[in-house]
Amino acid sequence: MSVWLQENSWQELDKLRIKAKDTIIIPVGSTEQHGRHLPLGTDTMVATMLAVDAAEKAQVLVAPPLWYGWSPHHMVLPGTITLRPEVLIEVLYDVMESLGKHGFKRFIVINGHRIVNIPWMQIAAERAQRLLGIKVVIFDPAYMSKEVVGPLGFGAVGHSEEIESSHMLYKHPELVHLEQAQDNPITATPLYSVDPRFTGDTLCYVPSTLTHMQNSVDVAGGTTGKPSQTSAEKGQQYHEHLVGNLVEVIEQLQNN
Amino acid sequence: MSVWLQENSWQELDKLRIKAKDTIIIPVGSTEQHGRHLPLGTDTMVATMLAVDAAEKAQVLVAPPLWYGWSPHHMVLPGTITLRPEVLIEVLYDVMESLGKHGFKRFIVINGHRIVNIPWMQIAAERAQRLLGIKVVIFDPAYMSKEVVGPLGFGAVGHSEEIESSHMLYKHPELVHLEQAQDNPITATPLYSVDPRFTGDTLCYVPSTLTHMQNSVDVAGGTTGKPSQTSAEKGQQYHEHLVGNLVEVIEQLQNN
Amino acid sequence: MSVWLQENSWQELDKLRIKAKDTIIIPVGSTEQHGRHLPLGTDTMVATMLAVDAAEKAQVLVAPPLWYGWSPHHMVLPGTITLRPEVLIEVLYDVMESLGKHGFKRFIVINGHRIVNIPWMQIAAERAQRLLGIKVVIFDPAYMSKEVVGPLGFGAVGHSEEIESSHMLYKHPELVHLEQAQDNPITATPLYSVDPRFTGDTLCYVPSTLTHMQNSVDVAGGTTGKPSQTSAEKGQQYHEHLVGNLVEVIEQLQNN
Amino acid sequence: MSVWLQENSWQELDKLRIKAKDTIIIPVGSTEQHGRHLPLGTDTMVATMLAVDAAEKAQVLVAPPLWYGWSPHHMVLPGTITLRPEVLIEVLYDVMESLGKHGFKRFIVINGHRIVNIPWMQIAAERAQRLLGIKVVIFDPAYMSKEVVGPLGFGAVGHSEEIESSHMLYKHPELVHLEQAQDNPITATPLYSVDPRFTGDTLCYVPSTLTHMQNSVDVAGGTTGKPSQTSAEKGQQYHEHLVGNLVEVIEQLQNN
Amino acid sequence: MSVWLQENSWQELDKLRIKAKDTIIIPVGSTEQHGRHLPLGTDTMVATMLAVDAAEKAQVLVAPPLWYGWSPHHMVLPGTITLRPEVLIEVLYDVMESLGKHGFKRFIVINGHRIVNIPWMQIAAERAQRLLGIKVVIFDPAYMSKEVVGPLGFGAVGHSEEIESSHMLYKHPELVHLEQAQDNPITATPLYSVDPRFTGDTLCYVPSTLTHMQNSVDVAGGTTGKPSQTSAEKGQQYHEHLVGNLVEVIEQLQNN
Amino acid sequence: MSVWLQENSWQELDKLRIKAKDTIIIPVGSTEQHGRHLPLGTDTMVATMLAVDAAEKAQVLVAPPLWYGWSPHHMVLPGTITLRPEVLIEVLYDVMESLGKHGFKRFIVINGHRIVNIPWMQIAAERAQRLLGIKVVIFDPAYMSKEVVGPLGFGAVGHSEEIESSHMLYKHPELVHLEQAQDNPITATPLYSVDPRFTGDTLCYVPSTLTHMQNSVDVAGGTTGKPSQTSAEKGQQYHEHLVGNLVEVIEQLQNN
Repeated sequence: MSVWLQENSWQELDKLRIKAKDTIIIPVGSTEQHGRHLPLGTDTMVATMLAVDAAEKAQVLVAPPLWYGWSPHHMVLPGTITLRPEVLIEVLYDVMESLGKHGFKRFIVINGHRIVNIPWMQIAAERAQRLLGIKVVIFDPAYMSKEVVGPLGFGAVGHSEEIESSHMLYKHPELVHLEQAQDNPITATPLYSVDPRFTGDTLCYVPSTLTHMQNSVDVAGGTTGKPSQTSAEKGQQYHEHLVGNLVEVIEQLQNN
Repeated sequence: MSVWLQENSWQELDKLRIKAKDTIIIPVGSTEQHGRHLPLGTDTMVATMLAVDAAEKAQVLVAPPLWYGWSPHHMVLPGTITLRPEVLIEVLYDVMESLGKHGFKRFIVINGHRIVNIPWMQIAAERAQRLLGIKVVIFDPAYMSKEVVGPLGFGAVGHSEEIESSHMLYKHPELVHLEQAQDNPITATPLYSVDPRFTGDTLCYVPSTLTHMQNSVDVAGGTTGKPSQTSAEKGQQYHEHLVGNLVEVIEQLQNN
Repeated sequence: MSVWLQENSWQELDKLRIKAKDTIIIPVGSTEQHGRHLPLGTDTMVATMLAVDAAEKAQVLVAPPLWYGWSPHHMVLPGTITLRPEVLIEVLYDVMESLGKHGFKRFIVINGHRIVNIPWMQIAAERAQRLLGIKVVIFDPAYMSKEVVGPLGFGAVGHSEEIESSHMLYKHPELVHLEQAQDNPITATPLYSVDPRFTGDTLCYVPSTLTHMQNSVDVAGGTTGKPSQTSAEKGQQYHEHLVGNLVEVIEQLQNN
Repeated sequence: MSVWLQENSWQELDKLRIKAKDTIIIPVGSTEQHGRHLPLGTDTMVATMLAVDAAEKAQVLVAPPLWYGWSPHHMVLPGTITLRPEVLIEVLYDVMESLGKHGFKRFIVINGHRIVNIPWMQIAAERAQRLLGIKVVIFDPAYMSKEVVGPLGFGAVGHSEEIESSHMLYKHPELVHLEQAQDNPITATPLYSVDPRFTGDTLCYVPSTLTHMQNSVDVAGGTTGKPSQTSAEKGQQYHEHLVGNLVEVIEQLQNN
Repeated sequence: MSVWLQENSWQELDKLRIKAKDTIIIPVGSTEQHGRHLPLGTDTMVATMLAVDAAEKAQVLVAPPLWYGWSPHHMVLPGTITLRPEVLIEVLYDVMESLGKHGFKRFIVINGHRIVNIPWMQIAAERAQRLLGIKVVIFDPAYMSKEVVGPLGFGAVGHSEEIESSHMLYKHPELVHLEQAQDNPITATPLYSVDPRFTGDTLCYVPSTLTHMQNSVDVAGGTTGKPSQTSAEKGQQYHEHLVGNLVEVIEQLQNN
Repeated sequence: MSVWLQENSWQELDKLRIKAKDTIIIPVGSTEQHGRHLPLGTDTMVATMLAVDAAEKAQVLVAPPLWYGWSPHHMVLPGTITLRPEVLIEVLYDVMESLGKHGFKRFIVINGHRIVNIPWMQIAAERAQRLLGIKVVIFDPAYMSKEVVGPLGFGAVGHSEEIESSHMLYKHPELVHLEQAQDNPITATPLYSVDPRFTGDTLCYVPSTLTHMQNSVDVAGGTTGKPSQTSAEKGQQYHEHLVGNLVEVIEQLQNN
C-alpha cells in the first residue's frame, strides 16, 4: 500500500480515500536553479518529502506532484522552468475539480517553492472552495517553520540557503554538493523583507527582475543566504517540525 | 495643481510627471460590506487617502482609483462587488502599461483591501516589471503598520475592526456610524492567522467561504474585531505612520 | 444619505435598493487626453455628474465609477490610460453580476466616453441580460443629446469640443482652462461621420490610428471641434436635458 | 477570373492583389431566423452579394464569407447559430492578420447582419489597425442606406422587413416565400430606436432578451416590419445604392 | 428544398430536422495554398461537396461551411488564411451548441483539410459531447479513403497531389489548372509519415515549419505528390467511396 | 550523473545540455483509471521509463514528468485526474518556452497516454516550433509500436490491455495485480477504430462519453482488451522496440 495516489489502482484508491476521510495532499514545487550545490528539483522534492511523511503518519493520500511552478526570476540561470501563473491557477483548479468529483473534500496544497507560488495557489483555492464545495488549505514551509527556524540558528529565508540545504542534505544527500556552495549573506533592506518572520513594516513580495537576480548569480551562483551553515541534523529537526505541523493541520481539517 | 492625474490636462500631467521623477501611485481598494458602521467603499477610501497625502508630500502623482477588488467572501452581504482575480490582473496590467508608455517608471500600488488583493497584484506586478521595464511595489496598510499597531493598542487585523474604524473616523467621520458598530473579538485558531504581525506557524491566507463568513454576519453584521475601541486620534497616528512609510518608499524608489 | 453605493453601509444600501426599485446607475468614462484645456478625467466626471444628479431626482443608486475605458487612439498624448475592450467586458460583467446577486435588477450604464466605449458595453450588457436575468440599458450623452445639441448651436461631436467643454465649465469650472483651448473645426469626410446626428450614409465608427490622431495633436493639442464656443450656460442646458432623459429612462425601466 | 479569393490559386491571387491595390472585402453575416419567408442565411447572402458586385466593379477581391455572427436573441427560433462575440473578435482578427501578412492593406468588412455585429467588428478592426498596420472599415447596409431608404418608401429597420425582403427578392427570388410573410409593424418606443435614421434621443442598441423576442415570434414568426411592402424593383435600387457606396468607399481607401 | 440549412426558413428547417432524425453535417475546410493548379478554397470545397451529396442521399442537413481552418504552415504562400486552433475550438463548439439547442443530436464534422484540422476538432467534439449531450463524429477524407486510395493507384497523402486534384477535377473542373501542376514525389522519411495508410512505426503529425515548407514551394509551388497522375474518373470513384462511407456513418449514428 | 534535469544543479545541467546536443525529452502521461490491475499512474510511468532508458542510451536529458493529461472519459472511475486540453496546451508550451530560452533546441514529447493526449500536444508543438524556433516531435507508444505489436501476438490497442499490462509487469511488477485483471475483448465497429494499425476506413478518434465508458466499467472494471495475455517477457521486447525507436528518433533530430 502506497500513499501515492498514482501507485494504486482505482479500487484501492477508493478504499484509501474513505480511510483518509476524503483528505489528499497535492505537492507542488518548481524546477528552478538552486545555486551550484542543490538540484533544480529541490522545491518539488521538498513538497514531496513533506507530503509523503505526513501522509504516512496521518493515513491520507498524496496526488502526483506538480513539478512546475512560477519562477520568472530564476530564468536567469539554466534549467529553470516557469509557467505563467494564469496557467498554474487552471492546472491546480482542474486537479482539485477532478479529485472533488471522486469524493475528496479536504485538500492540502503544499508549496515547496516557498513564498513565490502562494498568489496563484490562493486564487485557485478560493475558486475551488467556492465552486466545488471543498476545503483547501495552503501549506508553505516558510510560513510553517517560523517557530523553529530561529531556535535552529538558521538565518532569514533566502534561496538555496542553509534552511533548504539542510533539509535536502537530510533527505537527498546524494543530490547535494556542499563543496560547490557559495555564501551570499542577506543584508537588510529598509521596509522590505520576504521572510515571514520579519517583524518590521514591509512592502509585499514581488518576484525580482532578471536584472536584480543577476547580482546573486554573480556573487554566489544564484544563492542567497549561508549554505555554509548547512547541517543534516538541523535539516531533520526542521523536517520533523514541518511534518508535525502538517499532521496537525490534517487532523484539524478532518475534525471540521 | 492636483496630485490626481485625472484633474490635470495632458500637458500639465506631463510636466508633473517629470517633477515626480516618473513616479505614480495607483490606489486600489474594494467595494464590500464593512459591518454596520463603515461605508462599503472603505477600502478604496483608505487607499485614496494614503495616496493623496503621501503624493502631496512627495510631489508624485496619483492615478484614478480602482474601486473594485477581489471580495468573493464578502458577497455574503449586500453592496459587495467582486471581480474575478483573473480580470483584476489584466486591469492593473493595462493601467501600468498605459502609464509606462507615457514615461512613468516607478509605480506604487496601494492595496486598501488589506491582504486580500495581494495575490493578483503580485501577478500583475511581476508581469509588468518583466515586460514593461518598470519598477512596481505593493504597499499594503496591514504589512506597513506592523510596527505601529501594537503600540497604538490595536488588536489583530480583522474586518471593520478598530484599525479601519479609527482610520475612517479620522478622515471620513461623516461616513462612520459608530453607534451601529458591533464587536466580534478575534479568537486564536491553531496554525492560522491572517495578521502579518502573527509570529507563530501559519497556513497561508485563503478567502473564507460564504458559509464561514455567515458567522461574522450573524454575530456582528460582518465585523471581526473590536470597533468599540475606535479612536480618531489613533486613526490619525496610524495614518501618519503609513503616510510616512509611503513617502519613504517613494524616496527609495526614486533613488534606485 | 448619499446616492453613492460606496458611501453607505451595507444595511443602508439594502434599504436604499428597495426604495430605488432595484435600480442602479454604473458611471463609466475614461482617463484620456482632452486637449490642453480639459482634465484627463473629463469623461468619467461627465458620467458621474449625470449619474449623481439623475439618481438624486429618481431616488436610485450609483455604483462607484469606473475611471478606465477603451482609449487606444488617445494614447497619442500623455496621461491616457486604455484597457483592452476584452478586459472591460469582463469588468462590467462582474460588477453587474455582483450587484445582480444582491437584488439589483435594473441597470443603467452611462458612457461618459461618448461613442467609443459602446461596443464592449453592448457585449457585456447582452451577456448580463442573458445570464443574470437583469435589464441593462446603455446611456450615451452623444446619443441622448441629439435633440438638444442643434438648438444650442453646438457643432458636431468631436473631442474636447464645445459640447464637452461647456458641460465641464458648468460643473467643474476649476478644472477647465479655456485660455489653453485650441479650435480644430470638423470638416466633412465623404461617407463617414461619428456624429449620431449625421443623416447621411456612413461607415461605422472605428477608433482612429495613432498616426491619424497625430493630426489633431499637431493642430490643436488633441482637440477636434470648437472649444472657443464654450458656454457654461449652454453646458447647464445640455446637462439638464441629459439628466431629464436619464430620469425618464429610469422611470421607463421601473415601469416595465 | 473570379473575385473570390478561394476560387483562385495562390499565384493568381497574388497577381489580383496587386491589381486590387491590396484591397479585400470580408463578407460577414449570420445564420439566424428571418421570419417565415426568408432563408436562415439571409444576412450572409446580403453581405456576399454586395461584396461580389462591388468587387467586380472596383476590381478588388473578396475573402470567403463568414456565415456565423452574433445572434443570441434569435436563438428563440430554430436554425439560428450564434457565436460568442469574444470568439468572433478573434476569428476576424486572425483572418485579417493572415491576409495582412500576404500584403493586403485595405480591408472592408461588410456586416450583412445589420447593427448587431458591429460591436465585435469594431474591437477586431481597432486591434488590427493598431497591430497590423492595415486600414479597416466596417460597411453596414443599414448605415449605408440612410439616404435611400426613405425615398424608396421603406419603413424603419426591423427584422426580415420590407428592406431585407426586397433585397433578397431581387437577388435570390427562389429562396423568398412571400406568401408566408407576416407583418409586424414597428411602433415607436420612447428614447429608443435601433434605426440609424432615427433623429431623436436614444439609448444604445443591446440585443433583446429571448423573452422580449418571443413577442415578435408570436405575432409574426420572427418578423419585425412590413414584408408585405416587398418589391424586387426597390430591392434592386437599394442594392445599387449600396454597391455604389461600397465602390466609393473602396476608391477612397485606395486614394489614402 | 435544399439540404443547406441556410437556404431554408426556420420553419422549413425545423421540419427537415425531424426528417433528418436530428442529424446535421458541418463542413469545415481551410483557405490555403494548393499549388499552382488548385484553388485556395479546395479543402472547403471538398468538405462541401461530400456533405451535400451525402446529405441528399441520407436526407440530412448541412450547416453553412466554415471556410477557415488551421494552416500555419501554408502561410508560406499568399492567400492562405489561418486561425489559431484555440479559436477554432470555440467556433466549432459554439456552432454545435447553437444547433444542439434547436434539437440537433447527431453531428458529423467533415474535415476537408485532411489531417491538419483534426486536433482542434477532437477537442471541440469531446467538450460538446460532454456538455451538450450530443453525439459528434469527425469524418476525414484521408482516414475514410484508406481502402480505396491504393486500388485507385493513388500515392500517399501529400498536398494538392493526385488525390485532391482528381477529386477537384471531377467536381470543379473550371477551377483546376492542370497545366500549371508540378510534381513533387513523396520520399519516405524514417519513422515518420502523415499518411493514415502507413503501416510502419511513426511519430505523430505536427504541422511543418515555414522553413521546411519552403522546400515544397521551391520545388513545386507548394505541391507534394504527383498531380500529373490526376484523373477525373478516379476522382469520381474516390468521391463516391467517401460519400458511401459518409452515408453509412450517418445511418449508424441514427441507429444508435 | 542523472538524465533527469531536476536531479542536476544548473551548472551540471548546462554542461549536460551541450553533451545532449540541446536535446531533451518531456515525458507526459496521465493519472487515470487503469482497470483493477494497473496503477492510476500507468501512463506517466510508461512515458517515464521510455524516456529514462532512451536518454541514458542517447545521452540526452529528461524534463520532470507531467503527471496530468486529458482524461475526461476516464472520470467514470475514481482517481482519474483530467485537465482541460486548453490548459495542457499552455502548460506544455510554457515548459518548452522555458527550456528553449536556456538553449534546448530539440524536444521529444512522449505521450504515455496513448492516442488521447495527441491533439493538444500537436497544437502546443506547432506553436512552439513557430514562435520559439525549436524542433518538436511527438512520440506515442501506440504509433511507435505498430511494427512489433503484431509479431508479439498482442491484440488491438484498448485500455489496460495486454500491451500496457505486459509493459508495466516488466518494469513495475510490484504495482501490477494480474489476479484482479478482467478481460473485455475488443469487438470490431464498422468504420471506426482507435488502433493505429487498423487498415480500414475509419472515423477519427474522439474520447468516449461517460455513458459509453460505463460499459467497460460494468464488464471489466475499466479494462478494454485481454490483460489475461500479459507477459513480462513480451513487455520487455515491446519496451526495447520503443526505446530503440526513440533512440533513432533522437539521432535523426540531432543530425538535422
